[in-house]
Amino acid sequence: MKDISEQDLNTNLRLVAKHGPTHRTIVSVGPAEIGGGRVVVMAGPCAVEGAEQVLEIAKQVKAAGAAMLRGGAFKPLTFPYRNEKMFELRERGLAFLQEAGRQAGLPVVSEVVDVRLVDMVAGYVDMIQIGSRSMQNFPLLEEVAKTGKPVLLKRHYGSSLRDWLGAAEYLLYNGNSRVVLCERGVVAPHTHQPASRFIVDLQAVPALHEFTHLPVIVDASHATFRREYVAPIARAAVAAGADGLILDVHPVPAQAAVDPLQALNYEAFGQLMGQVDGIAKVLGRTI
Amino acid sequence: MKDISEQDLNTNLRLVAKHGPTHRTIVSVGPAEIGGGRVVVMAGPCAVEGAEQVLEIAKQVKAAGAAMLRGGAFKPLTFPYRNEKMFELRERGLAFLQEAGRQAGLPVVSEVVDVRLVDMVAGYVDMIQIGSRSMQNFPLLEEVAKTGKPVLLKRHYGSSLRDWLGAAEYLLYNGNSRVVLCERGVVAPHTHQPASRFIVDLQAVPALHEFTHLPVIVDASHATFRREYVAPIARAAVAAGADGLILDVHPVPAQAAVDPLQALNYEAFGQLMGQVDGIAKVLGRTI
Amino acid sequence: MKDISEQDLNTNLRLVAKHGPTHRTIVSVGPAEIGGGRVVVMAGPCAVEGAEQVLEIAKQVKAAGAAMLRGGAFKPLTFPYRNEKMFELRERGLAFLQEAGRQAGLPVVSEVVDVRLVDMVAGYVDMIQIGSRSMQNFPLLEEVAKTGKPVLLKRHYGSSLRDWLGAAEYLLYNGNSRVVLCERGVVAPHTHQPASRFIVDLQAVPALHEFTHLPVIVDASHATFRREYVAPIARAAVAAGADGLILDVHPVPAQAAVDPLQALNYEAFGQLMGQVDGIAKVLGRTI
Amino acid sequence: MKDISEQDLNTNLRLVAKHGPTHRTIVSVGPAEIGGGRVVVMAGPCAVEGAEQVLEIAKQVKAAGAAMLRGGAFKPLTFPYRNEKMFELRERGLAFLQEAGRQAGLPVVSEVVDVRLVDMVAGYVDMIQIGSRSMQNFPLLEEVAKTGKPVLLKRHYGSSLRDWLGAAEYLLYNGNSRVVLCERGVVAPHTHQPASRFIVDLQAVPALHEFTHLPVIVDASHATFRREYVAPIARAAVAAGADGLILDVHPVPAQAAVDPLQALNYEAFGQLMGQVDGIAKVLGRTI
Repeated sequence: MKDISEQDLNTNLRLVAKHGPTHRTIVSVGPAEIGGGRVVVMAGPCAVEGAEQVLEIAKQVKAAGAAMLRGGAFKPLTFPYRNEKMFELRERGLAFLQEAGRQAGLPVVSEVVDVRLVDMVAGYVDMIQIGSRSMQNFPLLEEVAKTGKPVLLKRHYGSSLRDWLGAAEYLLYNGNSRVVLCERGVVAPHTHQPASRFIVDLQAVPALHEFTHLPVIVDASHATFRREYVAPIARAAVAAGADGLILDVHPVPAQAAVDPLQALNYEAFGQLMGQVDGIAKVLGRTI
Repeated sequence: MKDISEQDLNTNLRLVAKHGPTHRTIVSVGPAEIGGGRVVVMAGPCAVEGAEQVLEIAKQVKAAGAAMLRGGAFKPLTFPYRNEKMFELRERGLAFLQEAGRQAGLPVVSEVVDVRLVDMVAGYVDMIQIGSRSMQNFPLLEEVAKTGKPVLLKRHYGSSLRDWLGAAEYLLYNGNSRVVLCERGVVAPHTHQPASRFIVDLQAVPALHEFTHLPVIVDASHATFRREYVAPIARAAVAAGADGLILDVHPVPAQAAVDPLQALNYEAFGQLMGQVDGIAKVLGRTI
Repeated sequence: MKDISEQDLNTNLRLVAKHGPTHRTIVSVGPAEIGGGRVVVMAGPCAVEGAEQVLEIAKQVKAAGAAMLRGGAFKPLTFPYRNEKMFELRERGLAFLQEAGRQAGLPVVSEVVDVRLVDMVAGYVDMIQIGSRSMQNFPLLEEVAKTGKPVLLKRHYGSSLRDWLGAAEYLLYNGNSRVVLCERGVVAPHTHQPASRFIVDLQAVPALHEFTHLPVIVDASHATFRREYVAPIARAAVAAGADGLILDVHPVPAQAAVDPLQALNYEAFGQLMGQVDGIAKVLGRTI
Repeated sequence: MKDISEQDLNTNLRLVAKHGPTHRTIVSVGPAEIGGGRVVVMAGPCAVEGAEQVLEIAKQVKAAGAAMLRGGAFKPLTFPYRNEKMFELRERGLAFLQEAGRQAGLPVVSEVVDVRLVDMVAGYVDMIQIGSRSMQNFPLLEEVAKTGKPVLLKRHYGSSLRDWLGAAEYLLYNGNSRVVLCERGVVAPHTHQPASRFIVDLQAVPALHEFTHLPVIVDASHATFRREYVAPIARAAVAAGADGLILDVHPVPAQAAVDPLQALNYEAFGQLMGQVDGIAKVLGRTI
């Protein structure tokens, strides 16, 4: 098993490693400061479905306390067949996302999967997401680092903390230290439902805070895949010390183009935000 | 992968299955009510080391808000060699535990591993623990069930929810429905440190509340094996909706006879209890 | 992750550890010698269903080259409900198994799960099986060791090699060194079919031969749960260096009382035995 | 858990699915035919270190019975720091590999990780390897497919068979059906040594032969990471029905630039090839 050793921290992980117990990096994305006193909540649709859809969601999540807007425009899918409902807007989706963020006053984050599209995507977003399946796409990491934009680096579901921090080290090595780590569940030996096949590794939160100065957030939606588990895991993540959350929100989740089982509607999101704020306050933070 | 189907709930798991959204069982252990409005914290030494040790700990954890006293007297160990420091008191340890609970006003819980000792152990404790490695020791489950005592059934670290609920079904089938489930971590495909080899499956908490009427608590000490992770995971468990916690507490953890890396001292325990109470209140509960 | 260190081999695992590259133990069960030049095949029904059934199977597997007869009389089941078809014979089943072995000239192996029944079971069988779920039932290990009978110790599906060898150490520590280890699959992070939820860890075979002097066999039936995979995995186990196999054989597998999907019929078993013999010869062994 | 359903085979995996029990694809790479009567062994250095090195290895593995030459020129590494010994030749390495293959009469296979370099790499090799970490790099899959070259698609170590076949479906969907699947180990819940952190899933071999018409080979070197386990797992893979093997061979393994613990020297490789041929013959095949 590949564990993180002192030697790793001195050589392989020298840039991501902490240099003292209080060494913490705050990553600013517009007005949002990740890793500081606030628990930063990024919320929005799994997939941008249209200009009006994403604008409405942006306003709603902003009102409920979100600090950033998320939305997918280029979605990697397990199979090459995209169903008719899944009208992927691609670059137009990014433009809609950018405009919605501007009008709602929220910085935006979206994923890039193709190294040839990094500069294009960087032109629309305030933070670039590296998805789970791209965590060790090293050419992509290098090009994304070079944009200078803040980076949200998701953990691969089969990855150790060591491999994950190795991917983060690539970003810092290429000159970009504005990196936020995002836990989103790991493959589980046994699970309870076909729809919840990943176990969220919340021990990763204190463990990463021990090894690295980078902030850590948790994706409670993709990790659980079921609406009923999103709120419990989101609350648990904040209670464990996470610096933020990323959540799928949709006005009518059952009609979402992608992952309809996991999105929260506005009411559920608002209720969750109240609980998250309460838990954050117990730990001396706020949303 | 063995998942829980509707058919399972109607046949294999008919006694542990919920019969409606509000069907919940409260398991009373003396004055402690597990599964109700209070988050029940069971605390105490991993191993009972002496009469005075366990009495002092009992008074301290009671003062900090614990509702039950835990303590091991018969410890299953991975290897047959017991180091000198590990003076196992066996039946005398149970008597010390019982007396400490009586003086502190706390019901006590301890583990039994040998089917031939069930009646003896039942004579000393208010609740009988089935340890992780005994989860599918069916003769032991039957004999423990027949004592009529409340049972704390830990999940095996390689077990699915289905197998775990199957073990609980044995207890109810043998006439004992006073069963509390205890999550304590599952084997992980990758982890961060040799000392933290299990991932706590907090999704199990909402999942079990969906499938069964039995209460669910979390062992945050044995799951993490490292003191630094105990408080984050204990807070997270309560935030996820757990009905209680079980925690190792020791006056000088580094000198504990067993598992010295994971116990909390009184100060850390007290601080954690304050946080746990705050989080419980956000969810409409108290400790 | 708990790995096997030099220190473990010197202290915790001192009795099972090899004392030199050629240190190997041969475990004799009647005329069968496990760990020597022959690949020992144990075959028979998952559950003994009657005197005639097990006798016929015994004669058939003997004719095909099996060296031992297996058969379950006390079967641990995941749920407390036994279907009507599953008429468990218990002690009568052991008597039938013993008699079938005697008539066919095959030593017999069967499982014990209840520490209170060890002496009774030992009266009927030539080798006692500790099942996967009982691997760390330490009182059971102690009593089984004291019978002096050869022991077949199955690996728990969530267990490391270290924990498994720790359980074997209990047997040797209690005076019984006639121990054979049996790999039967570990929990897998992802798998291909609900019916094949364990991955056989064939690296365990050379790894155990490096650490311990005890023989290692593979259960290709319970590990795969599907007939189509039994022959490939059985062949692979022998090619990897296993000292033997344990296989479910049934005249009409679809009508087997337990695990009907995994048993081989006589024809499939005979064909497999021919292949196993061929592969064994490539490695300088025979069946 | 994501299993492969009938619906998947009819929709998501329609191109990789078998259309009958005898539906098998043979992938030709020069004179080597993968998926036919021969077990195709691809062997060579993990990393091409120089023109003479790779030529000598090519001649040696050819003499021992290998049908293809493997060699890495662009190596993805976990950390951005490359040690001095790891002189990566990149495009020059590909030229050396191509020339060595030409002189030895062996088609060559090498990995591409950067979508921008696909055409360049395709100019040198007879078969393009998609590495484990790139299995779901969908833009890379599309560009590699379009070259028309045969593709060796390795399984990600955290991937299900369903996700893996989904990646293969991308290749066929983009017009390239010359695809060979390569099992190389999956993350294991527990293992025996830090250096052998993956468990080879040999059940994947019969399972894939049941679901898909594509050939399946096994990488016994990267899966085990330790020389002592390479030969047992390579033999086991062929015994389980694999259509080929890919193996690291180095004249002085301890001096290999990359992964020095896993390569076989010429003598060990020659001995293994003899055993593999013997096992193949038991199953009616040859090398």
